[in-house]
Amino acid sequence: VDQQMMQRARDRLDDLTKPQGSLGMLEQEIIRLSGVMGKVIPEIRSPAAVIYAADHGVAAEDVSAYGPEVTEEMVVNLCMGSAVSSVIARNQGVRLMVVDVGVRSVVRHPGAVVHKVANGTQNFTQGPAMSMTELRSAVQVGIDTAHALVDDGHDLLVTGEMGIGNTTAATALAACLLERPVAELVGRGTGIGQTQMARKQSVIERAIQQNAPDPNSPLDCMAKLGGFEIAALAGTIMAAASRQVPVLLDGLMTGVAALWAVRLNPRVADYLFASHVSAEPAHRAVLEALGLRPLLNLGLRLGEGSGGLLALPLLQNACRVMAETATFTDARVTNP
Amino acid sequence: VDQQMMQRARDRLDDLTKPQGSLGMLEQEIIRLSGVMGKVIPEIRSPAAVIYAADHGVAAEDVSAYGPEVTEEMVVNLCMGSAVSSVIARNQGVRLMVVDVGVRSVVRHPGAVVHKVANGTQNFTQGPAMSMTELRSAVQVGIDTAHALVDDGHDLLVTGEMGIGNTTAATALAACLLERPVAELVGRGTGIGQTQMARKQSVIERAIQQNAPDPNSPLDCMAKLGGFEIAALAGTIMAAASRQVPVLLDGLMTGVAALWAVRLNPRVADYLFASHVSAEPAHRAVLEALGLRPLLNLGLRLGEGSGGLLALPLLQNACRVMAETATFTDARVTNP
Repeated sequence: VDQQMMQRARDRLDDLTKPQGSLGMLEQEIIRLSGVMGKVIPEIRSPAAVIYAADHGVAAEDVSAYGPEVTEEMVVNLCMGSAVSSVIARNQGVRLMVVDVGVRSVVRHPGAVVHKVANGTQNFTQGPAMSMTELRSAVQVGIDTAHALVDDGHDLLVTGEMGIGNTTAATALAACLLERPVAELVGRGTGIGQTQMARKQSVIERAIQQNAPDPNSPLDCMAKLGGFEIAALAGTIMAAASRQVPVLLDGLMTGVAALWAVRLNPRVADYLFASHVSAEPAHRAVLEALGLRPLLNLGLRLGEGSGGLLALPLLQNACRVMAETATFTDARVTNP
Repeated sequence: VDQQMMQRARDRLDDLTKPQGSLGMLEQEIIRLSGVMGKVIPEIRSPAAVIYAADHGVAAEDVSAYGPEVTEEMVVNLCMGSAVSSVIARNQGVRLMVVDVGVRSVVRHPGAVVHKVANGTQNFTQGPAMSMTELRSAVQVGIDTAHALVDDGHDLLVTGEMGIGNTTAATALAACLLERPVAELVGRGTGIGQTQMARKQSVIERAIQQNAPDPNSPLDCMAKLGGFEIAALAGTIMAAASRQVPVLLDGLMTGVAALWAVRLNPRVADYLFASHVSAEPAHRAVLEALGLRPLLNLGLRLGEGSGGLLALPLLQNACRVMAETATFTDARVTNP
């Protein structure tokens, strides 16, 4: 990122007709956007949301409030324009791309982009979730998709996911990468009760014990405990950063994907923006590890990029403020 | 508010294709909007922002980072479309009305609506800020303006203000209405340092001692310690509630105005939505007293309705979600 541009952005912000610092955290984010985009006045003209969908073998362990068939059903719903994120994206004029990177069955809608690595991951309580070859393929899908979106002129990517069982995979991956106890990180996912949450915790603990991933090898952790959509998200995040395109994260899965990407390349962290902190304890831990402050804290736990889409107008408005607000000199407002 | 409609809204939310409760706090707010508007699917088609501007005699006590001439200058800036809130309102297609309810000089722009009660309040360290007649006039300006906006078809009002010195007045009013020590409530306003903040605190303490307002008489508190823009905001809030139009509050001044309105008519509280909690300690205290949870917590301290305008898309998106998301039955998504 361009440090000199960030200083120029800071100077401009302080010269606009408002008390200095009065936009609070938005001022930091606008300055970071300036650095990422290399412009004193950053612009978000054409954001796009990309949602990766995949299934998880671990869903067989009854760790979710929903059955695994719901992944495909919700992908269809997203493509139909009738899922929550489709509605918010349409309302805001944001392109929404849905990529099947590993749904276990054929998606019954032509709107989904199909780059299926496999029909879901393996159940990681019985061995690795995926092979190294599969991991590389999933990351590559994310990289290629990001480049295609940037080539299409999109200047900010909102990241999202759909995959029944994926908070189990993401929490396992977070516990592994952060080297923290599962008990501190496990959450209610789509809304499970105490009994099911205890099972989810023990499933994750068993999987970590069984697979013995090396916390110092992000690749090993992802292959053993991850998911195709999480790997694809990481690819997209890395590729977007390489193109100087900011990435607006959503919830836990996108956060873990970002953490994994940052472990491979620490400079990726500068390109990340946290839309919200969710109800998942692991999400908060991941954001802290990334050094990111969330824009929203509404107890969201929906996924599909919904938090990113909801927070997007904050960044867009901040950009407009940077572009169109008068300076004290311009407006002849007395500045002490 | 319509309790039966709120139950129907809750039922519909639980039937939409998303995990139950997964929109977190937005679900409570959408249910409250349903109750206010009397519609299962509430709509915000034509929101308007109204900003009341007035000067404060207490500005003479050097309690702000800016001189009192800045009120008029910023009203012109708002009318020119080049202040922060003008930019955000325009970007979102929201009508912005600026009302001079007591700026000390003539506003040099024809865009401002002029309903001047007086050329600023009196310095309340030396007696009441305004007379009872002036108080009634200022409240009436707010009532009439709200009715005119609702008559024009506006279905949600974002409230805002401009007035150098008004965090001093609002903090005094909050201390009086909440019967809490000034030291716990005083804040940095537009960004004053420690020395000036100590002076601000002692000015407020002196004003309360000097005027001895009756905490059980909201009218007495407002006349002795308030401001014309705060009184007008209260009138707008009461009138909007009487028309079943939701009010999206901004920062401290709008919060104190709402608290005052609620003291006169407790049912007004149901119509209020808190856009954010600001850096002012008194704002947090006021929101707690009103039982409101803020949508944003970004450390904003700008005023002009900026926080309300920034939070507005959250409510608008929530309304679209309520209207356009498929139910489990519609989308044939398996619901356990």
